[in-house]
Amino acid sequence: MSENNGYIPGLEGVVAAETKLSRVNGQRGELSIAGYPVEVLAANASFEEVIYLLWNGRLPSPTELASLRDRLAEQRTLPAPTLDLLREAARRDVRAMDALRMGAGTLDLDAGEDLALSATARFPMMIAAYWRMRHGQEPLAPDHRLGHAANYLYVLSGVQPTAVQTRALETYLNTVSDHGLNASTFTARTIISTGSDLVSALVGAVGALKGPLHGGAPGPALDMVFEIGDLQNTEPYLREMLQRGERIMGFGHRVYKVRDPRAEVLSAAAEKLYTSGSAIQGDMELYNRAKHVENTAIALLEEYKPGRNLQTNVEFYTALLLHGLGLHIDLFTSTFAVGRVAGWIGHCLEQQRYGRLIRPASRYIGNDDKSWIPLADRDPIPA
Amino acid sequence: MSENNGYIPGLEGVVAAETKLSRVNGQRGELSIAGYPVEVLAANASFEEVIYLLWNGRLPSPTELASLRDRLAEQRTLPAPTLDLLREAARRDVRAMDALRMGAGTLDLDAGEDLALSATARFPMMIAAYWRMRHGQEPLAPDHRLGHAANYLYVLSGVQPTAVQTRALETYLNTVSDHGLNASTFTARTIISTGSDLVSALVGAVGALKGPLHGGAPGPALDMVFEIGDLQNTEPYLREMLQRGERIMGFGHRVYKVRDPRAEVLSAAAEKLYTSGSAIQGDMELYNRAKHVENTAIALLEEYKPGRNLQTNVEFYTALLLHGLGLHIDLFTSTFAVGRVAGWIGHCLEQQRYGRLIRPASRYIGNDDKSWIPLADRDPIPA
Repeated sequence: MSENNGYIPGLEGVVAAETKLSRVNGQRGELSIAGYPVEVLAANASFEEVIYLLWNGRLPSPTELASLRDRLAEQRTLPAPTLDLLREAARRDVRAMDALRMGAGTLDLDAGEDLALSATARFPMMIAAYWRMRHGQEPLAPDHRLGHAANYLYVLSGVQPTAVQTRALETYLNTVSDHGLNASTFTARTIISTGSDLVSALVGAVGALKGPLHGGAPGPALDMVFEIGDLQNTEPYLREMLQRGERIMGFGHRVYKVRDPRAEVLSAAAEKLYTSGSAIQGDMELYNRAKHVENTAIALLEEYKPGRNLQTNVEFYTALLLHGLGLHIDLFTSTFAVGRVAGWIGHCLEQQRYGRLIRPASRYIGNDDKSWIPLADRDPIPA
Repeated sequence: MSENNGYIPGLEGVVAAETKLSRVNGQRGELSIAGYPVEVLAANASFEEVIYLLWNGRLPSPTELASLRDRLAEQRTLPAPTLDLLREAARRDVRAMDALRMGAGTLDLDAGEDLALSATARFPMMIAAYWRMRHGQEPLAPDHRLGHAANYLYVLSGVQPTAVQTRALETYLNTVSDHGLNASTFTARTIISTGSDLVSALVGAVGALKGPLHGGAPGPALDMVFEIGDLQNTEPYLREMLQRGERIMGFGHRVYKVRDPRAEVLSAAAEKLYTSGSAIQGDMELYNRAKHVENTAIALLEEYKPGRNLQTNVEFYTALLLHGLGLHIDLFTSTFAVGRVAGWIGHCLEQQRYGRLIRPASRYIGNDDKSWIPLADRDPIPA
């Protein structure tokens, strides 16, 4: 450990892992997941195919896919202590991400299972159980005939989703399934790098994803669209925000310097959902308002922050898409986790195979060589 | 994000944070905690003084210390859902660190409190409650007249510790209270850097500490002493290990290239505990055997790995000291967490004040531009 090295705030640009899971090219605005451009993979694959891809490095055969689907579906039932804890979380009105973190922490109360499978299978079950109990409803039993994404919508609402709705959710889950070494993925890798277990890594990752600087803020973009309300109100509202120096949520990204490729995938998925009349909440009018806010925001951002090239990021259309699927804003980040858990697990597998202990250094900036003063001799500073 | 930067395995030597909490000088074998050499602070301060120091940057006045002691003691009682979950963990025989991680995850079921205080106060209560329930005993109510360390020993055993025993535990907790940017502390900082909450950061840190490459292996050093048994058996036993190429637990450290300053502090504390006849388990004979194993191991390591200068690390005397305090080996890592939580919280406070999102990069080493093959067209690879 040398203290001569420079401090790198946020570790920006420091390569902390090698991975075969995704490539993020921020300069070109490209994302590929296990070698497939996100635009192709997200729109075509079922979520189970993406899980298989992230954990095995290739797409499954029909037989392999069927087997994964079955094994995942078998793991959906939540054990009693998990349900009890979620009930308590619902009763005390803790937030969805905290409930998910608590529930995830109980995954190893059922020892001996394939934890990667049960974690993936149970994340949506935990969220739905918590959500229903928080609203005075009992949790629903899973429907084993449904795939992962469709079952999530079903256990939330009690209604079987249409094919268009399921496709929209799968596109979303695929899109967010992995994204380089973001803070939650990096957290998972750091934890598992100590030789710790998968549950510990996933619980840590959920905790990191919760933060508003990471996954915890897909809501405000939609809140803004609602608050603007009328089309004519858009420009004055956004101008005022920019003049007050506020950040417009849903635009700009630390990594993507041009477009966020995920925004386009989700924009297309949202368009399909709304224009086909399949949205569970919201309608074409909402969709059109959102498009208008997007176009106005991009134009005004160019005016107020010329050359910064601030484009729509993943948050903006996430909000519109998940809203259209009937999800409450409070569930957006935990639904993000339903997709990202596939990537977290893939990274943990990589880290376990090839990684070493992640243990950076700190630089001491305090005073040194203080001399010890016994308690009785200290100045009686008023407390 | 540039992919031209080199991959730095384990982020070794990369400075990822500035801190006023501790300075680790691996080349010189020195550790100072908030400006005080660990030798001085650990042996003289109560654990509450170290907590105050880490969270406030200076030692408390008598009034401030009394106030912190009281406020901590008030937070000791575990809420019912936490106890229920720990009971379940005990019943299903999960390990102590997993039980602590689950318990810590429920800290925010009691909203509105000072989470730093309640986490610190409740870590030992959770461990003791879990441990007693795992052994068919009911948890004990805390004794509010006792300080933090003494109360921990009390709620584990039901017996009030002597002054020498309490001093020994406080010296241990102080010694491990902070140590630069170790993996669990770094995990906590990464999680809180996203804007997430303290509970999420601490739960992640507990998960990282569990790993055997970090805090999860103070047991084997003592196991080895027991297994060697007879003094005469020491040299042949250790020679055989070295010839088989096995690592001798308790010696050598990634950061300390000379001595581990914590080993000396804990060695002196263990000596006091055993020679004064205050050990709850073990006696002078065990202490002497351990010293003999230490001396023999250092000599043989120099013979088999000349020039590596492998010295006793913090694990060796941790094991001897905690054993002497009546703790079972399974509780060593969670007792480490009882001390380290003070540092984790201090780092979270620093990160919240001065840090930015910790988000390193990964380097993609997979294939690119794979073309999508629809499921029906894929080779039917046998599953």
